[in-house]
Amino acid sequence: MKQTWRWFGPNDPVTLQDIRQAGATGIVTALHDLPNGVVWPREAIAERKKMIEEAGLVWSVVESIPIHEDIKLQRGDWRQLIANWAQSMRNLAAEGVTNICYNFMPVIDWTRTDLAWALPNGARCLRFDQDRFVAFDLFILKREGAEADYSPEDVAAGRKAFETMSDEEKDQLVRNIIAGLPGSEESYTIEQFAAQIALYDDIDQDRLRAHLADFLNGVLPVADEVGATMAIHPDDPPRSMFGLPRIVSTIEDMRALRAINDSPANGFTLCSGSYGVREGNDLVAMIEEFADVIHFFHLRATKRDGNSFYEADHFGGDVDMVEVIRAFKALEDRLGRSLPFRPDHGHQILDDLTRRSNPGYPAIGRLKGLAELRGAMLALGATVE
Amino acid sequence: MKQTWRWFGPNDPVTLQDIRQAGATGIVTALHDLPNGVVWPREAIAERKKMIEEAGLVWSVVESIPIHEDIKLQRGDWRQLIANWAQSMRNLAAEGVTNICYNFMPVIDWTRTDLAWALPNGARCLRFDQDRFVAFDLFILKREGAEADYSPEDVAAGRKAFETMSDEEKDQLVRNIIAGLPGSEESYTIEQFAAQIALYDDIDQDRLRAHLADFLNGVLPVADEVGATMAIHPDDPPRSMFGLPRIVSTIEDMRALRAINDSPANGFTLCSGSYGVREGNDLVAMIEEFADVIHFFHLRATKRDGNSFYEADHFGGDVDMVEVIRAFKALEDRLGRSLPFRPDHGHQILDDLTRRSNPGYPAIGRLKGLAELRGAMLALGATVE
Repeated sequence: MKQTWRWFGPNDPVTLQDIRQAGATGIVTALHDLPNGVVWPREAIAERKKMIEEAGLVWSVVESIPIHEDIKLQRGDWRQLIANWAQSMRNLAAEGVTNICYNFMPVIDWTRTDLAWALPNGARCLRFDQDRFVAFDLFILKREGAEADYSPEDVAAGRKAFETMSDEEKDQLVRNIIAGLPGSEESYTIEQFAAQIALYDDIDQDRLRAHLADFLNGVLPVADEVGATMAIHPDDPPRSMFGLPRIVSTIEDMRALRAINDSPANGFTLCSGSYGVREGNDLVAMIEEFADVIHFFHLRATKRDGNSFYEADHFGGDVDMVEVIRAFKALEDRLGRSLPFRPDHGHQILDDLTRRSNPGYPAIGRLKGLAELRGAMLALGATVE
Repeated sequence: MKQTWRWFGPNDPVTLQDIRQAGATGIVTALHDLPNGVVWPREAIAERKKMIEEAGLVWSVVESIPIHEDIKLQRGDWRQLIANWAQSMRNLAAEGVTNICYNFMPVIDWTRTDLAWALPNGARCLRFDQDRFVAFDLFILKREGAEADYSPEDVAAGRKAFETMSDEEKDQLVRNIIAGLPGSEESYTIEQFAAQIALYDDIDQDRLRAHLADFLNGVLPVADEVGATMAIHPDDPPRSMFGLPRIVSTIEDMRALRAINDSPANGFTLCSGSYGVREGNDLVAMIEEFADVIHFFHLRATKRDGNSFYEADHFGGDVDMVEVIRAFKALEDRLGRSLPFRPDHGHQILDDLTRRSNPGYPAIGRLKGLAELRGAMLALGATVE
């Protein structure tokens, strides 16, 4: 098990030295400064890699090469954009960086309503509040037909949440949902957001999956050729949002992805936090079934509360993290090789509370999560690098 | 297993809120502001306890009620000092604080030559350097007859260390060794230190053990009466220093302690860091043999380098921490009750490097150690409170 850490590049307030001291040996990053859709130049990749290696670390995983909306929509230059994506992968592989994480969520990436929710011990965490989300969808975004997506109870609770929020809270909610969380590929105004959603009016799950198939069948031959792997990240949360199609939320979705193309490169990021939000998801069963094609683990835990959830301590959520790690170890033992994982998200604790950091990505909270994971892995007899 | 944390009281730069966020539920502390030898007033105990409880924590362990030098020397008012110690324990028990850690090291408590030794990742740690220690003993303290305590190689290396240290480094070395590390009971000048050591000229291990027996036989009846336990901390490092007798360094020493008085209150702090410095010490065997009378665990790891050692990551030292935790769990399963442990020491990492903290007791480094321990404990199926 390779201990890795998401780093947002030279502007990340968490430094490479911090990361080494937290105990990670590998870096998960992307060329976040490049616009979505362009080819990543080999020189820029080499430069970033050098920076990481000079700090005594290795670039383990790319998260992510973003998938342009036009690929998901199959409009405009989508074929060229697929070719560009494949070329970025080729350039990365030429520099020895071959583990690529990506996602195929339309319009929005991960979604939270609260970025600094107070816990009883004074820590702050991310939270998805269903009432606030409904309030945004129905009464701020005013999406047409949205009400049909919710139960009458949800609608009533959403209305109440809207009515009791201050203007400032509403502004903050809008920013949290559509202004782009770290790692997100897009950022919108309300009007842009509504327009972007409308583009998917005719795209249901099957059609989105067909678009994903065209993308995969376009890039997987290159992955196979250059020895890269592709690890799709699940939807977060793993269900439809704003009526948009989502196709990586369940074990059936995972099977459908594998049915598209049986290349061993066509695999998964096993994100225990995202999959874990959905009550019916059996994480251990997923790991066992897809052992050969899980290329990367995101380890975190969420705690459900109806349709709401918050980011719990790594061993304090609904998912049985010890069993997840046990399955991860069995997978490595069977394959005879080591896979990267990263602690995901983390509470803001101690100096995190007064230092700047990206939402969900504070230094000390993640250090705590990584240390808990490391201890459990060592206790279970795993090789921890 | 109860997660506790050493806190040096209201002046500790690490706050009770920090400690909660690190995940500890219990506090290990003492009335550090009171002079050695006085009775701890019940009101002062109650006040400190209230402060801890108002922060959502409990006062789990007293570390330490100091043992006055005159008790170890049996001089002056030593009988009164023993009575005072017993009265402090009685007052603590009256407030419900019954787990008492103490030590019986003459003159010096724990000893390190370097308090901020640089590790390759930029972290800082505690280190005991044998060459510097010999340099101090032979060429700064100039202790009579000291040379006989060391091998010719040690003497030569100590001389070389002395000759290559700057005056500033020498001053720092003196401060590190005799000016009192946190939790130490005394602080000396060179002259005071030499004079204090000389008081032990006629006290060998047997005589010191006899003095310990008089102390224990004086206070254990009170412990039994009020339901308190006494957990002696091992010598740190576990060997004679400055020719002084040390009597809590090995499993034979532990047996000798138990032979003094068979009260179940007459027990141990199993400090994996201190005992672990001595190559022949088998920590698991100690835990198994003294399972019934280990009242408190200090969990940390040291890495030996000849007679030198440094404080390693909690799972990166010579001791097999996973096996220690496994034995700890077996002990709890057998006894059917939960015992407190604390992560001990910690590297200075991240904001620790720029914030004030007591040597060995930085917030984030200890948080990391506690998190690693917690993860391992959960993975081994322990109940972690």
